[in-house]
Amino acid sequence: MRTSQYLLSTLKEIPTDAEIISHQLMLRAGMIRKLASGLYNWLPTGLRVLHRIENIVREEMNNVGAIEVSMPIVQPANLWKESGRCAQYGPELLLFTDRSERLFVLGPTHEEVITDLIRNEVTSYKKLPLNIYQIQTKFRDEIRPRFGVIRSREFVMKDGYSFHTNQTSLQETYDTMYRAYSTIFTRMELEFHVVQADNGSIGGSASHEFQVLASSGEDDIVLSTVSDYAANIELAEAISSETSRAIPSEDIRLVDTSNIFTIAELTAQFSLPIEKIVKTFLVYANENTGYPLIALIIRGDHQLNYLKAEKLPQVSTPLTFASEEEILFSVGVSPNSLGPINLPFPLIIDRSVGVMSDFVAGSNSEGKHFFGINWDRDLPLPQIADLRKVVNGDISPDGNGILHIKHGIEVGHIFQLGTKYSEMMKATVQGEDGHNKTLMMGCYGIGITRIVAAVIEQNHDKRGILWPESIAPFNAVILPINMHKSLRVKEISENLYHQLQERGIDVLFDDRRERSGIMFSDMDLIGIPHQLIISDRNLNKEEIEEKNRRSGEKKMIKLNAIVDYLANKIIEKK
Amino acid sequence: MRTSQYLLSTLKEIPTDAEIISHQLMLRAGMIRKLASGLYNWLPTGLRVLHRIENIVREEMNNVGAIEVSMPIVQPANLWKESGRCAQYGPELLLFTDRSERLFVLGPTHEEVITDLIRNEVTSYKKLPLNIYQIQTKFRDEIRPRFGVIRSREFVMKDGYSFHTNQTSLQETYDTMYRAYSTIFTRMELEFHVVQADNGSIGGSASHEFQVLASSGEDDIVLSTVSDYAANIELAEAISSETSRAIPSEDIRLVDTSNIFTIAELTAQFSLPIEKIVKTFLVYANENTGYPLIALIIRGDHQLNYLKAEKLPQVSTPLTFASEEEILFSVGVSPNSLGPINLPFPLIIDRSVGVMSDFVAGSNSEGKHFFGINWDRDLPLPQIADLRKVVNGDISPDGNGILHIKHGIEVGHIFQLGTKYSEMMKATVQGEDGHNKTLMMGCYGIGITRIVAAVIEQNHDKRGILWPESIAPFNAVILPINMHKSLRVKEISENLYHQLQERGIDVLFDDRRERSGIMFSDMDLIGIPHQLIISDRNLNKEEIEEKNRRSGEKKMIKLNAIVDYLANKIIEKK
Repeated sequence: MRTSQYLLSTLKEIPTDAEIISHQLMLRAGMIRKLASGLYNWLPTGLRVLHRIENIVREEMNNVGAIEVSMPIVQPANLWKESGRCAQYGPELLLFTDRSERLFVLGPTHEEVITDLIRNEVTSYKKLPLNIYQIQTKFRDEIRPRFGVIRSREFVMKDGYSFHTNQTSLQETYDTMYRAYSTIFTRMELEFHVVQADNGSIGGSASHEFQVLASSGEDDIVLSTVSDYAANIELAEAISSETSRAIPSEDIRLVDTSNIFTIAELTAQFSLPIEKIVKTFLVYANENTGYPLIALIIRGDHQLNYLKAEKLPQVSTPLTFASEEEILFSVGVSPNSLGPINLPFPLIIDRSVGVMSDFVAGSNSEGKHFFGINWDRDLPLPQIADLRKVVNGDISPDGNGILHIKHGIEVGHIFQLGTKYSEMMKATVQGEDGHNKTLMMGCYGIGITRIVAAVIEQNHDKRGILWPESIAPFNAVILPINMHKSLRVKEISENLYHQLQERGIDVLFDDRRERSGIMFSDMDLIGIPHQLIISDRNLNKEEIEEKNRRSGEKKMIKLNAIVDYLANKIIEKK
Repeated sequence: MRTSQYLLSTLKEIPTDAEIISHQLMLRAGMIRKLASGLYNWLPTGLRVLHRIENIVREEMNNVGAIEVSMPIVQPANLWKESGRCAQYGPELLLFTDRSERLFVLGPTHEEVITDLIRNEVTSYKKLPLNIYQIQTKFRDEIRPRFGVIRSREFVMKDGYSFHTNQTSLQETYDTMYRAYSTIFTRMELEFHVVQADNGSIGGSASHEFQVLASSGEDDIVLSTVSDYAANIELAEAISSETSRAIPSEDIRLVDTSNIFTIAELTAQFSLPIEKIVKTFLVYANENTGYPLIALIIRGDHQLNYLKAEKLPQVSTPLTFASEEEILFSVGVSPNSLGPINLPFPLIIDRSVGVMSDFVAGSNSEGKHFFGINWDRDLPLPQIADLRKVVNGDISPDGNGILHIKHGIEVGHIFQLGTKYSEMMKATVQGEDGHNKTLMMGCYGIGITRIVAAVIEQNHDKRGILWPESIAPFNAVILPINMHKSLRVKEISENLYHQLQERGIDVLFDDRRERSGIMFSDMDLIGIPHQLIISDRNLNKEEIEEKNRRSGEKKMIKLNAIVDYLANKIIEKK
């Protein structure tokens, strides 16, 4: 490709509306342009990377015997009614009617469509297992699209679905996909962790996320310093180092705190360690408790883990917090005066609250806190549960090492769905014994567009992007110096361009009439791995200068050796 | 690919809801499945063909220096308001609101988005011309989706757009794309014609369609028996062989036709040749005529060409016929009693009506026709224009040969848009003289999904599809006979499978436990070009039988020669 025929579209300035480095660099390197909130045009440089990522994913899917299909983006809403997700999915599901007033959705995922397809096509266990995938544009009507293509509304996803008659077969394909995903992200030179994850609205049992470590990541993931324990923070069990309760040393007393509204003010004004304070949340209770609300209590410095709270049998799903009005109506105080003593609702306390003594809590009367509270003495010890998010320094749930928390970008997610969709949608096959069997399903997703940003988050320097060889928009760029003045530079450059193309090397030929400084900084920004600088000075020695974009290393290479040199470099990395 | 891991999904019966052969064969060969009206799942066999077509298109686009981008499917409606097409496009344009109640369209085409992109990215003539394309899913809310993927609602299209500062440059790119399109359809072994076409709702000046001849085609195209004249019937000039008017031989007389309601009844009852009768249409007139309606008159055996009618300056756009009520109100009769004599509106007659004598027409009074009408004698000769559709036997507009009419499937369409979009959307660049210039545009479309059906319409026999080598889902299929009983057949088949794959041949290995009859008929149906039959009997002679699907020719080939033999066959055709 010649730059003169290309849409380079690099930008000098950092766009003001881009918060994170990958978004900034994708705009500056001319990879994407915003069309509307969460909608991006992919310019040639961006699309080249996207296609290379798609090809790696497609190769590895084919390698494990997955077969590619393509399902419509527009899906009849009646399938989503059948699966029960039409209501459950929420406003991210974009619904619309066609000219005949029939209801459709713009597909955010395809469990319903594939289940419908397979229940029609496959009638016998003999044709199973099946492992099916597509690479396709999806739409999710995100309330707050951000970070460029990391959280956009329209995006490309590889979504895969497998079908089985038993758990052993499902587990086999799940393990195969786990390995294939690891190969895919390794080929892209991503530093990633596979973490235990929750199934969320997709449903089912086991699930793993593939998380790329990045400071801008929206997910918190938890790793052990010693073992290979890794989980999404939503799922990680919290095990504190304190295991026993100290003996009470203070009397319980009611203290005036009428000018205090936050925990920070409480610790400051009374010189209290935050670990001596508890926070009380009122949430909707499950009907079978006989109460409208239930109290969840954690330590002042901890955060409530919503997923853990929601999984408690006493708590109503989805987790819903009582409003200020509801608290005022039922307890008679504002939320920051809530506490365990004299509360007309059941209590569940976090494990770490169970080992507290001489602690401080709201008194359920306005402007007053209890100080010096002790379990068993001042009130009975309530039910204990794991309620909080883990923190740095917690003991790893497998007992090996301590936990530290990292930010991650989720680029892949695999699920064992079991019979969630096939039961709702009556997808069965004839089993070996002649009886109908409900299908078991797995599902497997890779966020293709998001990977582009994730790679950049991990591969950049102050001058621009550092593409891994496997997904670079071009493998090499020819940078002729003063080509429009030197016939020799022009001829050698043109020659090299054709030779490299013939060897199957994807090469950009920067034939613009620009100053070399601009050419160098544009190519550093775009991040093409090999820069070939062709100047009269070097040609006098029959040489070309090769600069490695990542290492910065510069080498002089003989003119007649450059094609082989580069072909070896690039093909060995491909 | 092994059939045992594959979703073959062939059908024995002809699906009742498929009218044309390509639709029937695509369903029977397991290429597509209907999800809802105009929405199709692409099964693996169909998707393989689709991808090979995409690759040919992409290669040829890249060969002519076109650059690939990808624009969102979801587009802000405000761009369509800017171009004026939001209202103009009609109900095929699917409009919807997102969760923030902003209006969007599901992109049927991308003139607006690309014009918006380029007006932002390109500011100087120095970066032009640009030739940009994408291969992408589109949506048109067709009122009557039919013929499978020929007229579906969701479909894949290659849409391209070029930008220029002058007509010479636009014409150059247009010619280049014309040639590239011809190469593309030739590589797919399609029998096609490039025909002059109307620009329709896209707008602009010159335009050509690439039409694949097929009896099921929805377009009528017109070809000369001698020259290379070719046009869409909408556009073809009608030149009759009769050029002069015969002298009147009858008197004009009013004949009772009160029990006659159609032209067929008129010819039957009075033994009249249909060429002696005229038909009169009343349509809305342009305001500047001073009349509400205008009459268009053609010969009884001809059809009105709506496009020609609409292009008359006296006719209101879009072409609108007066209703029965309007005709009754303004003339006092039903439509079939209309005629040129005593009509209170201006007349325009077709060329062939201008040379009629002693003809028959409605009398504008109920139940009576005038017989023996002659121009100049009974009424003045009105304005003459080319109003009718050409018919078989008309003289070719270039004077060479006579015309015949064929049915075509439109697979490609190229347009010179000129400044239609850039003017409405204020897309300008700085010209060489420093002044702003409005961009000139070309646009170029290929119906990727539709091609799959068009190829089948031209390439099938009673047993199934006959794929051209260049786009076959697989190049070859291994058909082992009794593999599950013969270890030798199994080993040789497995070996051959791996050897062919290593040589880059896309091969299907039919490893099902099925009777050979079923395997043969399935593979004939799917239409894989080379069938390799491996049986103990042939192996005794160290041979394999190769059957050419298209010619039916069978050859015995030595085991050690088969890989080279096939590689040569396939690579020479690729």
